[in-house]
This record gives sequence, C-alpha cells and structure tokens, in this order.
Amino acid sequence: MSNLTINADRLLRRIDELGSIGRDAQGRLVRVAASDMDRLGRDRLVGWLHEAGLEVAVDRIGNIFGIWQDDANAGQLPVMLGSHIDTVIDAGIYDGCYGVLSALEAIESLKEAGFAPARPLAVAAFTNEEGVRYSPDMMGSLVFAGGIGVDEALAAVGTDGSVLGKELERIGYAGRHQPGFLKPQSYVELHVEQGPVLEREGIAIGAVENLQGISWQRITIEGQANHAGTTPMSMRRDAGVAAARVIGFLADRAGASPTPTVATVGTIAFEPNAINVIPSRATFTVDLRDPDETHLREEEAALAALLDDLAAGAGVTVQAESLARFEPVTLDAGIVSLIEEIAGAAGLSCRRITSGAGHDAQMIARIAPSAMIFVPSRGGISHNPAEFTAAGELVAGANILLGVAARLAAD
Amino acid sequence: MSNLTINADRLLRRIDELGSIGRDAQGRLVRVAASDMDRLGRDRLVGWLHEAGLEVAVDRIGNIFGIWQDDANAGQLPVMLGSHIDTVIDAGIYDGCYGVLSALEAIESLKEAGFAPARPLAVAAFTNEEGVRYSPDMMGSLVFAGGIGVDEALAAVGTDGSVLGKELERIGYAGRHQPGFLKPQSYVELHVEQGPVLEREGIAIGAVENLQGISWQRITIEGQANHAGTTPMSMRRDAGVAAARVIGFLADRAGASPTPTVATVGTIAFEPNAINVIPSRATFTVDLRDPDETHLREEEAALAALLDDLAAGAGVTVQAESLARFEPVTLDAGIVSLIEEIAGAAGLSCRRITSGAGHDAQMIARIAPSAMIFVPSRGGISHNPAEFTAAGELVAGANILLGVAARLAAD
Ligand SMILES: NC(=O)NCCC(=O)O
Ligand SMILES: NC(=O)NCCC(=O)O
Repeated sequence: MSNLTINADRLLRRIDELGSIGRDAQGRLVRVAASDMDRLGRDRLVGWLHEAGLEVAVDRIGNIFGIWQDDANAGQLPVMLGSHIDTVIDAGIYDGCYGVLSALEAIESLKEAGFAPARPLAVAAFTNEEGVRYSPDMMGSLVFAGGIGVDEALAAVGTDGSVLGKELERIGYAGRHQPGFLKPQSYVELHVEQGPVLEREGIAIGAVENLQGISWQRITIEGQANHAGTTPMSMRRDAGVAAARVIGFLADRAGASPTPTVATVGTIAFEPNAINVIPSRATFTVDLRDPDETHLREEEAALAALLDDLAAGAGVTVQAESLARFEPVTLDAGIVSLIEEIAGAAGLSCRRITSGAGHDAQMIARIAPSAMIFVPSRGGISHNPAEFTAAGELVAGANILLGVAARLAAD
Repeated sequence: MSNLTINADRLLRRIDELGSIGRDAQGRLVRVAASDMDRLGRDRLVGWLHEAGLEVAVDRIGNIFGIWQDDANAGQLPVMLGSHIDTVIDAGIYDGCYGVLSALEAIESLKEAGFAPARPLAVAAFTNEEGVRYSPDMMGSLVFAGGIGVDEALAAVGTDGSVLGKELERIGYAGRHQPGFLKPQSYVELHVEQGPVLEREGIAIGAVENLQGISWQRITIEGQANHAGTTPMSMRRDAGVAAARVIGFLADRAGASPTPTVATVGTIAFEPNAINVIPSRATFTVDLRDPDETHLREEEAALAALLDDLAAGAGVTVQAESLARFEPVTLDAGIVSLIEEIAGAAGLSCRRITSGAGHDAQMIARIAPSAMIFVPSRGGISHNPAEFTAAGELVAGANILLGVAARLAAD
C-alpha cells in the first residue's frame, strides 16, 4: 500500500471550508463546543461523512463517528482516527479540524483505492476538546474512555451559564449511542504541533511519545468593595491586587523553573468591575502543566501555599476549585515506532516529541493503544487566528496518517 | 432662624424609598447614570420636587433642578444645594442621594416654616457624578460649570457602548435648558464622608476644606495570543501578566508612599479570555488620587515610566488614555467657617477635613463659592451595599445644611 496517497486538493479545500464556518461579527472563528456555530461545523462534517459513504453515529456526549466497515470485517475492533472540531475563541483553522478532516481523507482515499482492511476504520470528532466553554477539556474523549460518567459531563455548566446536555439537545447532537459503544483496537490522532519545536529544527513529522500533565483551577478571591478615593491603602482588602499577586507569582515561578513547567492565567473578572470601586471579588483561571507528574504536583503545592499566605495576610478569602486534572500520559511505543517507520519510508524527517497541549489521544490511551502525529506550526503559534501550517506540510502529515492507518487495519 | 429644623421622618423615609428604587435581579442597587433604573430614581425625585412646590427644570446634560423663588427674590442669584442620585454598581443608599434629599428637605422645611429668603434656593441633582458608566465622573456638574462642552459630554460612550445623549433622550431627561442657565451665588453639598476619619475621631460634622486631585486612565496592553500548553514561558508575550505587573506596582508604590496617595485598579478584561489561551489583550482602569497636585503628577509619571519599561521589555505594546483629570480643589473659606459656626451653635463636634472622593462641589467651585458638609460613614465603607450612617447623624447633618442655607440665603 506504500504508494497510496490522500487527495490533497480535497483535504485542503475542506480545511478551508470548515475554517470559514463559525465566524462571529468581527470575523473571529468562535466555534466553541455545542454552540450554534459548532452545530454548523458539525452539520458540514456529517455531510462529508455521508458523501464518503461512511455510517454516521453520534453518542450521548455528542461525539460524532464515521465508520467504514463491510461484511468481511464487521466483527473486528476498528482502527480509530480522529480529533475534534470545536475551537477556542478567535481560533486558527487547523487545531483539531486538521486531524478530523485528515482522518476522513485517509479513510476515504483507502476506500476509493479499493483497499480491503482486515478491520473497520472510523473517523472520530470528539465533543468539547478545547474546554473553553465547559470544563474539563477533552471531555468527549474522556467520557468515551469511561473517565467520567456521561450524566455528570452532560450536567457541566459553561462559562456562559449554559448546560452542556441542554445545548447538545438544542443543536441536535445529543446522540443515542452510549459513549464507548465503539471499542477501538487502536487510535491515531494527527495534529498541528501548536509549539515551536518542529519548525525550529526543520523536521517534517513529530512522533508524539508523551503528553504533559494538565491542572486547571478556578480561583475566587473575596475582599471588600470600598471607595477608590477615600480608602487608605492600609485599610484595603483588594481582591484585584491579590489576584495580580498570584498572576505575577505564577509567571515568575514558571519563568525561573528549570523544568518545562508552564503557567497561564487566561481568564479574569472583577466585581463589581467599576473604575472607582475596590474590587470585592476577583475570579480567574490557572492552567499549570508539566510533563512530569512530580513537578506538576510541586507547582500545584506552591500555588496552594501562596493562596494560603494571601488568605492569612491580605485580608481576603480564597477558594480554589479544580476544573481539570490529567496526569502525563505515555503513548503506545509500537505505534510511535510505526509512525517513525512510515515517515522514514516516505523520506520525511521525523523526531520523537512531547505534546505541550492536551489531546483526545491522551484520553483514548486509557482504553486502546494510541499515538499522535505532529506537523510543524509556523512560529509555534496556536489558539490564535495566525495559526499556520503550509499546505505541503499538511498533506505530508495526512499521508503519514493514511500509511499508519493502513498498516494498523491490515491485520 | 437658629431653632428651625428639618422634618427628620420625611428625610429618612425618602432616603429609604429612593434606596429601594433601581435594584437588579440579585437585589443590588445599580442606578448607573441615564439607565432605566436611573430614570425610575429621577422620576421619584421629580415627584417630590413638585410636591414641595418647587419649579422643576432639567438642562441638556440631564441635571435636575428644583427652584424655590418668589416675586420678592426672583432677580437674585440662588443659593444652590445639591449632589447626585446616580450610583455605582452594587451601591449603598446614601452616596449622593443623602445630599440631594437633604437639600430638598432643607428647602422644603424653610418654605413650610415661612422663612422669607433674600434670594432663591435651588436643589440640584447632577448627572453621572459616579462616572461608572460614562467618563469623566462629576460630568453633569462639570458641564454645568463650563468645564467641558455639553455636546462633547453628550457624545460620551459608556462602558456598555451606549451614548449618553441618546440614553438621556430615551429616559426622558434630555432637558431644554442650557447647562449653566442658573448661576449660583453659592453652592453647598452635604455628603457621607465615605472614609474612616470622622467615625474614628468620634466627630459629628466634617467641614470639607479641600478635595484631592483625581487621575483616571484606561490602559490597554497588547501581547500575543498563544497556546497555554505549548508556548514556553520565554516565548510568551502575555498581556495579562503585564497587566498584573502594573497592578502590583501601583499597590506597592501607593502602599509605601509617605503621601496619602491612593491607587486602584477597579476594572479589568482579558481577550480572548479563554482558560488555555495566553491573553492577547488586557484592558484595565487606573484611579490615582492625591490631595497634592505635585505628588499626583509624580504618581502619573511613575506609572508612565513603568508602562514604557513594559513596552520596552515584555514584548507588549501599551496605550494609556486619560478618562478624567481633576486637580485638587480648595473650597470657599467663608462657607467652611460658616459650617463650623453653625455646627458649633448646634452643639455638634466638627473638624476640617479633606475629601478623598470627588464631588460635584469640586466642579461648581469653578463658578461659585462652594463648600461641603460631611457626616460619618460606619467603618469608612462606601461604594458597597454595607455603606451606613446612623439616622441621628444623617438628621444632624441635614440640620447643619439647613442652617448654612438659611444664612447664605438671608442676604
Ligand atoms: N490541542 C489543544 O489545543 N487542546 C486543547 C486543550 C489544551 O488546552 O491543551
Ligand atoms: N462621592 C463619590 O463617590 N463620587 C464618585 C466619584 C469618585 O470616584 O470620587
């Protein structure tokens, strides 16, 4: 099968088209999970799955599957290829979508070429991978892998107060299948790196061998509202200043760390949020990551200690709530080697790499041998409309996915 | 006239009633300028002005006046008593309203007692004193005093994107009088202190001799959105961290200052405001105050230098926009002495005091001899629903206002 390739034009056209769906009034791509915009993207994807002659199934958490099976292989566990099509706010067009559309493209090309797989092949598009609207991230794949119950996940309350289950019903993607109804024999996810490593080293393909751990928390600091003009500095219980101390601390600590720890405060809100009122409340999120579980715990402990100090000294009360917590994951050594082998056979440079981002593969690895393929991200930029990977690099990655899938499905 | 007093029951009843108007779904008092809630408050006030037999006039910026004049004094410049009835978000019931309702109460009581003033007396309720919805604060009195043009002020765009002029028309308070149509002979404003001084010293009446300078700015920091998991700390251009540095700097600097400088960041927003996206933009407001203009300029210069440093070093761009800038103001020595004299005659303890808050008197002082009377604020708390002044203290302050007004109107 080594001379089979994907239909590059079709893949690139679909990536552009899906990237044009879900733009807001300012032209920003905002297809957050289970929103009206997400529905439009899902509808388009389902249309393509049908066009490719795949059997479409949706599970209760809204994961979409396109399955190619025939009488000869119907009893076998499928090879699953996938990712997600939900986006962050003001997103690029590649994150997730590239993986789903390449999965479809690989399967469609194999089908068109008359490839006769020993087992079914399935495309998966998992719900709410980004975690921007509902926590935790990778929610659809986590539920699919049995990591949390589907009812608990459906009850998740979004940043906008919406309830995921209600939203899935509203947009027509509360499916009838139980999550996990389709047990994969293996899972492979193709994705843009979203980081700077491959581009910096001039390497075409990353064979992802592990993913770092993720700790998401929501911190709420309560102080006391008071008048900005009349309240002496010494009498203030300023929740906003306390929040700023935490943000500065995290940046300083991660910045000085000898480990690859990263720390981010991406969201914040003050109450009452008025120019001449000392904030009575500050709410913000913390995203802490490290490839080493021991280090990640140290970072969490350092944050907890700082919050205790603030509560003891700054006249504020502090609450920390965990929104997501995933340990680092090691991917399947066999599939990682297979990716290297296929890339080598295609004459592409390849290196093993750690994923800085969380991915659905991190969840599916709990139930099936899983791995990931990365392609370079220009300037290491992602979660930004400037996210970019050149067409040739996208096509190269999709061809590696096709090759890996063909091998996994061959027996 | 020294034995004349206000109708305490009526004053206290009106304060409570006005404080019950403009509550949101959570029970918070949110009567920000020119909002639907503000309209309800204004309508109630106008009803009371009519009940008291005053002539009601509204000017183009929405300032409301209730005028008591008769044939004998019609040609004379009026003594003006007033404050504002707009509120912050989640406000107390005294800030501003106490001054307007006491002004009405003093005039109504003088009228009922058959007092024959040598000049008219007028109640004033100025538009958008708080400055929470539209900048600058004290806008109605500033326009009234000729400090900015009425058309410029009506074009102000609010924190919610609304335009003040359109909102005033919508709520029926775009009046026909030119601001300044009523030139005061003198202006006296009664207000809760909003700070801790009078309560701490057990003093009933503050004779305000000066008000500190106010500098309001909106700072916008632009960095680069990127992925929270994949972007090494060293490659980040995090607008949120830069904002946190500014907040920490201001708190440290004002906290350590030998001057009574205060610095507050009351509002903040990140973009795109997503948990796993490094903020591309942080917008926040700075409220800097000092009773000494030289010190205030030093604080502004220190902030500007920090912003320059950030722009030079942290890979971000920084914009600072002035939203309000008022120099410190010294009030009229004659009226300040008169307040002390009337308080002394009433057997009330009194001290001279500096106002930490901005007030309409600060603007009207540009066109007429002006002064202010303060009463204690429990715990120095204001811009907070816990704002409180005991009934006896409120009544005592209103009686001093009556006494001062009677003397100013006597010749
Ligand atoms: N790949 C990706 O951006 N996933 C979103 C979850 C995360 O923040 O890592
Ligand atoms: N008195 C009062 O709270 N005025 C609002 C303007 C300010 O912030 O000082």
